[in-house]
Amino acid sequence: MLSKNKIRFIQSLARKKIREQEKVFLVEGNKMVLEAIEAGRQLKTLCATSGFLAENNISPQMATEVIEVSPEEMQKASLLQTPQQALAVVNMPEQHFNLTDSTQDLALALDFIQDPGNLGTIIRLADWFGIRHILCSENTVDCFNPKVIQSSMGAIFRVEVHYLNLVETLKMAAASGTKIFGTFLEGENLYKHPLSKNGILVMGNEGNGISEEVARMVTDKVHIPAFPGGQTGSESLNVATATAICCAEFRRRMMD
Amino acid sequence: MLSKNKIRFIQSLARKKIREQEKVFLVEGNKMVLEAIEAGRQLKTLCATSGFLAENNISPQMATEVIEVSPEEMQKASLLQTPQQALAVVNMPEQHFNLTDSTQDLALALDFIQDPGNLGTIIRLADWFGIRHILCSENTVDCFNPKVIQSSMGAIFRVEVHYLNLVETLKMAAASGTKIFGTFLEGENLYKHPLSKNGILVMGNEGNGISEEVARMVTDKVHIPAFPGGQTGSESLNVATATAICCAEFRRRMMD
Repeated sequence: MLSKNKIRFIQSLARKKIREQEKVFLVEGNKMVLEAIEAGRQLKTLCATSGFLAENNISPQMATEVIEVSPEEMQKASLLQTPQQALAVVNMPEQHFNLTDSTQDLALALDFIQDPGNLGTIIRLADWFGIRHILCSENTVDCFNPKVIQSSMGAIFRVEVHYLNLVETLKMAAASGTKIFGTFLEGENLYKHPLSKNGILVMGNEGNGISEEVARMVTDKVHIPAFPGGQTGSESLNVATATAICCAEFRRRMMD
Repeated sequence: MLSKNKIRFIQSLARKKIREQEKVFLVEGNKMVLEAIEAGRQLKTLCATSGFLAENNISPQMATEVIEVSPEEMQKASLLQTPQQALAVVNMPEQHFNLTDSTQDLALALDFIQDPGNLGTIIRLADWFGIRHILCSENTVDCFNPKVIQSSMGAIFRVEVHYLNLVETLKMAAASGTKIFGTFLEGENLYKHPLSKNGILVMGNEGNGISEEVARMVTDKVHIPAFPGGQTGSESLNVATATAICCAEFRRRMMD
């Protein structure tokens, strides 16, 4: 049985301020909740139908609180248009950012990504490409936004997303010899440019690309070449799509 | 001045049935409306603020009907949360599908893509890669859905999207010697497999991948390899992301 207060609390997690106060975030959907458990995350509250609880052998130690709910209660609590059989309030992970760790392999840096769907898709593709760390400018959309969580498809439990002073962090990385890659219209052809096995790949804002301050920290400017008969221009590729194409090329070279 | 009837009509274009009856679709946003004009599309109705009309030298022959609207009227008519200064009702293009034309270069085929954002992103990346034709199964989401139009970012005016019996079309294409590529978990490594300059690349449904019937028509099964430390599995890459990675590889080979 789900109290009105609990429903109100769950819904309040749509707001960043509340998430930060409470140090929790909301995870919705059967698959996502199971991925959180599989990733060893401690659930603060698990709300699920009797069917979900029975089918998935939910043991008490997986969640501080397990509440069996009816489909009607789920409908009331959920932020989704078509809720599933489970949602969970999950404790935020304690992450300690370590520049040396992050730059031992390829890392991503995001400069003011605004759209939750784009951030979720980028987290998901980082997971696919084995990229463990995403460094976000402080004005990038919050990775615990429910829409980011949904579009990350569980990758949020495996990829570390750090919010930090991006200019300062890149400055330190460059000072220690880490290559900083970024896509610019005037950059060198991605397919001809030498790519290193480790480094930081910076992707910029949906409308404006990489900011001037961050651009100054980039050591290797590249661009995805225009293809015969195709469109060119800064706005012609979605940022998540461009990220995927760049990451694929880094990883392809590694395998060569 | 925008009549109540006109507002009702504009909003009714969110529905596929009405779009098909009226043979028009809705385009919102300054940039998108200008792209429609630039692409030589005849606007049936252009609703814009006086500022937009003055700044952009809108001449009478660009639209059958031009209605100057106030920001308040735009707010009422728009399907967007934050409307801009222009929206247009645009005539659907008359497209005649020709298999030989479509397969002279690389074409995409979409097997039951459901999410409007995914379809819009795929149209946009097709435009970037110079892919002129997208062949869609009849159950793929309508390309004139307002959400598809928005996420295509104007590419809808340059890429032809055809709805057809995909199995029959692929059968004919294969019979005439066209290679049909598709991504499957058991496929060959995309980066090792020979890719032709022309052919059809099939991408499947968000949850279930390529359907069995369509899979039988695929002559070249490929897969995007798992990367060191990365996730594997069918659901680990968003379909638009996977499409981008595959198209980039086809085009990179062409340029080699």
